[in-house]
Amino acid sequence: MKKVAVLGAGSWGTALAMVLADNNHEVRLWGHKQAQIDEINQSHTNEKYLKNIKLSEKIVGFTSMEEAVDSVEAIVLAVPTKAMREVCQQLKGYLKAPALFVHVSKGIEPDTHLRVSEVIEDELPESIREAVVVLSGPSHAEEVSMRQPTTVTAASLNIAAAEKVQDLFINQHFRVYTNSDVVGVEIGGSLKNIIALAAGITDGLGYGDNAKAALITRGLAEIARLGSCLGANPLTFLGLTGMGDLIVTCTSVHSRNWRAGNMLGKGMKLEEVLESMGMVVEGVRTTKAAYQLSQKLQVKMPLTSALYHVLFDGVDPKDAVDELMSRSKTTELDDLAQLLGDRVQ
Amino acid sequence: MKKVAVLGAGSWGTALAMVLADNNHEVRLWGHKQAQIDEINQSHTNEKYLKNIKLSEKIVGFTSMEEAVDSVEAIVLAVPTKAMREVCQQLKGYLKAPALFVHVSKGIEPDTHLRVSEVIEDELPESIREAVVVLSGPSHAEEVSMRQPTTVTAASLNIAAAEKVQDLFINQHFRVYTNSDVVGVEIGGSLKNIIALAAGITDGLGYGDNAKAALITRGLAEIARLGSCLGANPLTFLGLTGMGDLIVTCTSVHSRNWRAGNMLGKGMKLEEVLESMGMVVEGVRTTKAAYQLSQKLQVKMPLTSALYHVLFDGVDPKDAVDELMSRSKTTELDDLAQLLGDRVQ
Repeated sequence: MKKVAVLGAGSWGTALAMVLADNNHEVRLWGHKQAQIDEINQSHTNEKYLKNIKLSEKIVGFTSMEEAVDSVEAIVLAVPTKAMREVCQQLKGYLKAPALFVHVSKGIEPDTHLRVSEVIEDELPESIREAVVVLSGPSHAEEVSMRQPTTVTAASLNIAAAEKVQDLFINQHFRVYTNSDVVGVEIGGSLKNIIALAAGITDGLGYGDNAKAALITRGLAEIARLGSCLGANPLTFLGLTGMGDLIVTCTSVHSRNWRAGNMLGKGMKLEEVLESMGMVVEGVRTTKAAYQLSQKLQVKMPLTSALYHVLFDGVDPKDAVDELMSRSKTTELDDLAQLLGDRVQ
Repeated sequence: MKKVAVLGAGSWGTALAMVLADNNHEVRLWGHKQAQIDEINQSHTNEKYLKNIKLSEKIVGFTSMEEAVDSVEAIVLAVPTKAMREVCQQLKGYLKAPALFVHVSKGIEPDTHLRVSEVIEDELPESIREAVVVLSGPSHAEEVSMRQPTTVTAASLNIAAAEKVQDLFINQHFRVYTNSDVVGVEIGGSLKNIIALAAGITDGLGYGDNAKAALITRGLAEIARLGSCLGANPLTFLGLTGMGDLIVTCTSVHSRNWRAGNMLGKGMKLEEVLESMGMVVEGVRTTKAAYQLSQKLQVKMPLTSALYHVLFDGVDPKDAVDELMSRSKTTELDDLAQLLGDRVQ
């Protein structure tokens, strides 16, 4: 039994708190809304984020981050990517001994193009971090909260730390693999939203399963190409945090990115879509970041590039698909062989 | 403009005949049912297999195989796997000059465990075959007949032959890649049905998207492992005929294998399922063949093996999932690294 803090009481943070409580850990769940934390402590529910789910009494809510992290061995960072830097700045004042940091956020910081673990390492001095581990994979929070079978990956440069996270979370319903490829796990988790947006567009255009399967397959190849350039192991993209998470995101109508793409495919303008969603569509920012990275690193990303021109240059989605379909004839393995070239040589 | 025969007037044969006709080839579509061939020639429809689709007048139906293949340059074999040997035996009497053979069937011959191209090579003497090419990929026939964007792979040991097939079929809606890995393309196309059955079972058990994504991801890894042992290039499984086709099959409720699995997951016995479907469920035979191959070649295939025990030894599907979830802790890349080991060294 360990003391673990989970920062962020949204659906994913709460679902992970439940896994930890199922494993008999003492869980401190931090959020900044008093009413929500009261609900967690009094009714043992978090209705807005996980409907009809009863939480264990081992999960105690806190609105004080300082109290939540007091003498814990591990801290799970379950806040949105854009809040990560600020939360870390706040956190570093409260820690007396080094702790294990597990982040579960998917995104790339705009402008800096930093991955989430890089943001964390930027902000938290080495003296208070035992290690940074990313936990990622195909995992709808609702399903985890219902104890449905789920598999995820814990990745860290420090494999012993990844194994500690595996030990914290693994149980009969929640299977955790370890991996040392932090770059691959983070890039796969972030860039999948680009392909989810594009999948929404082809569905919105009325194209079928054939087009979507092609998109997912070729999309993963170009994500892997960029990831490899950034130092990832291309094999990671074939795993749960690459292919697995991509499939869940592209085939679920609950995905926010898919829904935004769907509206674009049906003819709405980006501004209208964003306005009607009323919230951040992560894939839009990620497309910009990935496009900029691909230009800088000279990596061929035809799908990302086509999507970028649809989003930011007013290109008609149908014209973009037509252009992709009429590229010059090619052998299928050229790209993939090139992708794995570095490893093979 | 070339003369091409398509043997098999089901939905896939007819859809491919349409692609060829769109490319201005003279197409002879062979089937053995007189009424159906009359309908193709008189109404230019094939309603039972492609609803509400108008066929080109460039497609001419034949019930005589001898006439259909007279002086053609290429023959597309679009008959079910189990009819392939018999059709080839018939065919060899009618051919005067060598032709290009394109097969589009997915399966493994029971007992012999031969791939479809091996069956063809077994039956057709070298003197009459210019080359054998397999055309495969994520491609619902209905979508192809509606000219929706589709991508497929043409694979042959003779890459010049694969390029001829690419030239025959490629157009604005139907993108064809080439590949020299016949084993990989055929194994991917056949074994995907195992995973589709298993995906139906987890859906039938009421498990969610997390479980299905894990299943597809880990399933592809074990298909690739067996395929590599049989001489396939593991990279092929990341392409359209591997991952792409697998995604289409596992996420479409129209898939016959998925439906059969779904009934098993809901508690029906295999015999009841097969009886109620009233037709062959290819994945059941393929599971047996793959299981036998994995035993013979000593390849680890935990999902296939679990499914085999559910289908043939009466193991409860839920117990099988529970057992898979409680395997010993492992690193994710072990399997994949092992998979690519041969290539990397």
